[in-house]
Amino acid sequence: MKALWLQNNRLQLLSDVPVPEPPLGEALVRVVRAGICNTDLELLKGYYPYNGILGHEFVGVVERGAEELIGQRVVGEINAVCHQCRFCLSGQPTHCEHRTVLGIVNRQGAFADYLTLPIENLHRVPDSVATDAATFTEPLAAALEIQQQVAVSSSDRVLVVGDGKLGQLVAQTLALTGCDLLVVGRHQEKLDNLAARGIQTGLAEAVSDRSFDLSVECTGNEAGFAIARRALRSRGTLVLKSTYAGQLTFDASSLVVDEITLIGSRCGPFVPALELLATKQVDVEPLIHGRYRLNEGLAAFDRAQSRGVLKVLLEME
Amino acid sequence: MKALWLQNNRLQLLSDVPVPEPPLGEALVRVVRAGICNTDLELLKGYYPYNGILGHEFVGVVERGAEELIGQRVVGEINAVCHQCRFCLSGQPTHCEHRTVLGIVNRQGAFADYLTLPIENLHRVPDSVATDAATFTEPLAAALEIQQQVAVSSSDRVLVVGDGKLGQLVAQTLALTGCDLLVVGRHQEKLDNLAARGIQTGLAEAVSDRSFDLSVECTGNEAGFAIARRALRSRGTLVLKSTYAGQLTFDASSLVVDEITLIGSRCGPFVPALELLATKQVDVEPLIHGRYRLNEGLAAFDRAQSRGVLKVLLEME
Repeated sequence: MKALWLQNNRLQLLSDVPVPEPPLGEALVRVVRAGICNTDLELLKGYYPYNGILGHEFVGVVERGAEELIGQRVVGEINAVCHQCRFCLSGQPTHCEHRTVLGIVNRQGAFADYLTLPIENLHRVPDSVATDAATFTEPLAAALEIQQQVAVSSSDRVLVVGDGKLGQLVAQTLALTGCDLLVVGRHQEKLDNLAARGIQTGLAEAVSDRSFDLSVECTGNEAGFAIARRALRSRGTLVLKSTYAGQLTFDASSLVVDEITLIGSRCGPFVPALELLATKQVDVEPLIHGRYRLNEGLAAFDRAQSRGVLKVLLEME
Repeated sequence: MKALWLQNNRLQLLSDVPVPEPPLGEALVRVVRAGICNTDLELLKGYYPYNGILGHEFVGVVERGAEELIGQRVVGEINAVCHQCRFCLSGQPTHCEHRTVLGIVNRQGAFADYLTLPIENLHRVPDSVATDAATFTEPLAAALEIQQQVAVSSSDRVLVVGDGKLGQLVAQTLALTGCDLLVVGRHQEKLDNLAARGIQTGLAEAVSDRSFDLSVECTGNEAGFAIARRALRSRGTLVLKSTYAGQLTFDASSLVVDEITLIGSRCGPFVPALELLATKQVDVEPLIHGRYRLNEGLAAFDRAQSRGVLKVLLEME
């Protein structure tokens, strides 16, 4: 099969990778659509020493290993877990100590004709959700993780820093809480995309100091962190939603004086993400900025790394 | 009156400072004992641009302005607040936007013969609490702030990093929760002090990675932070209890992947702190490593800055 393979920070298109054999408890999934995420771009830069097939956002059709799902469109949770460690046993499987992670840690990813995942990781895509839209289930679930960690109410002033792929989904999901939301970014057309949905937007200069209850950092850079930090009132909460390449430097004393809470946030729940897509409470179509066939994968990555580009999809059929 | 005055990062003993006149709502307090805190040492280094009389840990006797307290020993909360801002109105007066802070922000401090504070800030010292011990009320309250922010239970594995003044009080207060506690530091005699109270202690090497639910950073340096961070399991909580001179650098991606919570922690509740002293549930006497008269204040600061020295007290009578 074809696959986009990362080896020593170099991405290559392979055409003769064997179709994987699903182990017991796993299903063989034919990938039909996949999305390039910033984490993929970070992996390419060496953020984490992964070698193998990239990709963790996908929609596929089950071919083998899960009788009740054969022929169905599915999306898949990316952490394959052990069920036995303290995290699995305490209901926090995304932190399983022995997890493999699709296209990220010790598990071949989705930028290929086929992948395997544990059957329990798969969710059927409702008929009302288009395949393109369903490809956003994983990042949308990650956006929803914020609300698993922090109670957001309609009385909260909330700032989202970053108008990129993640910022767009984070903003749309937070807007559903009815909170007083501002999204700041650097790209007018991306901000316009949110403004069209009634979300208040602006440039970084629009952020007044010490006035937000919650800020969500979606840029992955130090300048974005600085905006998210200065925006917070005392005892405010800053959610770090992006992976950062390299170190982050900040004024720890001010964090102590203002008793700020900083929370790292990663994978989230798939079921409500699919529900939001099915009920069209979030709109992901405008985020699609490019479509490539898998065998044009290297060009797809070039496009995904271009300034101002949101989601680039890979189409396998 | 005599006073230790900080001016442009230089501490000097003045002997002719006018006794302050208490404004309406404030009491004139004759200081009888005061403690030198790390924050005082940081202010000396320029951590915050304060000029004036230093000192915020004290016991005094009320002389004027609070009829019901005249002649009584008191301790005092250090934040003088406005009662009108959003933080005061939401029950978070220590974050008052217009606060002055005794010996730290726009309010003359306690290393003097007299100070003034709002009457509402004062707490009578129970007869059963010695004046020396009562001097620890403020830092003990700060240690208790952790338990206002994070629920600590007997099933939690908790690490305290640092065996200094603050670490000693944090450790003793956390031990009262019945949690599985380890304190690590660099000074055997300070660790022995805690071990004598039945608290498990060790050197930094004793800290196993990814095994604690909660860690409290009480060193104020980057090496201490690194230990507190690596000790945490996924979704663990790191409390920053120290003020840091300068910037702190850390791996933000690992914070995201492990969904770590970082919480800054400052001033805490005086009433339970006095209660712990009255019931002798914490023991502060062994922490006193020096006593100086106010007019030997510069020598007291030299001593407080010496390696291995815990609390240095100033005696005004």
